[in-house]
Amino acid sequence: MTRFFVEPEQMRPEFLVLTGENAQHAKVLRLKQGEQVLVCDGQGRECLCTVSDLSPGQVSLVVNSRQDSQAEAAVPVSVYMAYAKGDKLEHVIQKATELGAYEIAAFPSARCVSRPDEKSLKKKLERWQKIAASAAQQSGRGRIPQVIALGSYREALHRAAQADLAILFYENERSATLRMALEAGEYRSVSLLTGPEGGLEEQEVEQAVEAGMRVCTLGKRILRCETAPLCALSAVMYHTGEF
Amino acid sequence: MTRFFVEPEQMRPEFLVLTGENAQHAKVLRLKQGEQVLVCDGQGRECLCTVSDLSPGQVSLVVNSRQDSQAEAAVPVSVYMAYAKGDKLEHVIQKATELGAYEIAAFPSARCVSRPDEKSLKKKLERWQKIAASAAQQSGRGRIPQVIALGSYREALHRAAQADLAILFYENERSATLRMALEAGEYRSVSLLTGPEGGLEEQEVEQAVEAGMRVCTLGKRILRCETAPLCALSAVMYHTGEF
Repeated sequence: MTRFFVEPEQMRPEFLVLTGENAQHAKVLRLKQGEQVLVCDGQGRECLCTVSDLSPGQVSLVVNSRQDSQAEAAVPVSVYMAYAKGDKLEHVIQKATELGAYEIAAFPSARCVSRPDEKSLKKKLERWQKIAASAAQQSGRGRIPQVIALGSYREALHRAAQADLAILFYENERSATLRMALEAGEYRSVSLLTGPEGGLEEQEVEQAVEAGMRVCTLGKRILRCETAPLCALSAVMYHTGEF
Repeated sequence: MTRFFVEPEQMRPEFLVLTGENAQHAKVLRLKQGEQVLVCDGQGRECLCTVSDLSPGQVSLVVNSRQDSQAEAAVPVSVYMAYAKGDKLEHVIQKATELGAYEIAAFPSARCVSRPDEKSLKKKLERWQKIAASAAQQSGRGRIPQVIALGSYREALHRAAQADLAILFYENERSATLRMALEAGEYRSVSLLTGPEGGLEEQEVEQAVEAGMRVCTLGKRILRCETAPLCALSAVMYHTGEF
């Protein structure tokens, strides 16, 4: 079924109207009167609706029923990724959204060679959020993960450490596995933090431990900075019973 | 430690010589006499060596010790991916190699819109194998996964089904999870098969079941054709104790 995202304040109990890009998209899809569609508020709530009227630039819908989205992960997992070269962050935003991430936060660290300046950041954030919205729509999610740009490594640690289970992946960690962390206790939220191309500095890993994060390995093979977060996210989703 | 791949027949018990691209690479890295390097045969065997002499286009090494590679997965996992548009197969070859795939096989299926013709296939296979070699080197593997191009869907099923545990992922499967398959018994080899952009046809899924494959879901979110194999591979590596 076709899925549209609207702003939460546009959700109404009985009737809904699609405008702008949504109306354009409806036209491209050749939606017809009487067809059923899903309208999501991007925060996990959705309405099953029937198309009642189509006019240029506007699609009117009757709300049939409302429900919590069925496609959200049982445990919210936040992905913290250091700024990386090229389109790697965009790649991770798209894939992490498909894989069910709750939110995606980008942050600078000592060995980051690429980092958006303040001037371009606003535009980039808009672009990143659009990538997340599009991936959420394609994968059938009811929630669009928020993409967050953090100003410092310290801020990233502080925020990531607030999850019940906060894990940093470090290639020099040999013994502590992700499985040990996931089996160590109960948690209702998870955060996963990974470094840039050159890895995190030892001192940064120590800071994370001080902030309350666990340090884990992702195995004997060195993963690229865009592979590590998606590998870890896939494993956490598997462990928490998503598939 | 720097890692070089040589052909298996170039492996010698006491002395080794690096030539061609390896010698060039050694020059770029400014290797010096007395330095230690790892030389791998790309099939999981490696030698710890010391540089004894450097001349233009040739690096002479003394073999100190030989061992099985420490970075190979305990359970060999083969990735079967339907031909996809653009550079998606290349992307999966690179990432699946990092994640520890034993081999990567590409095959056509009914809804594949892109498929290399026989003329271009030889060149493409060379290119794909280079991508695997480069990813194996970067991730510190001792084995270069073989990239295989299969001529038909039937051939892919026949080959994939030979693994102890052979799984096809289908977005219309609702109840059978990957976990159920992985916990169902003992296995010494796994194969994971995923479809193209438009998915596999129902009839193709039935054929796979007849061939002896299990059909599983990867969860409630629809994954892109390049995300599904990497998500599944990450989960299998996690399940089999890699991290």
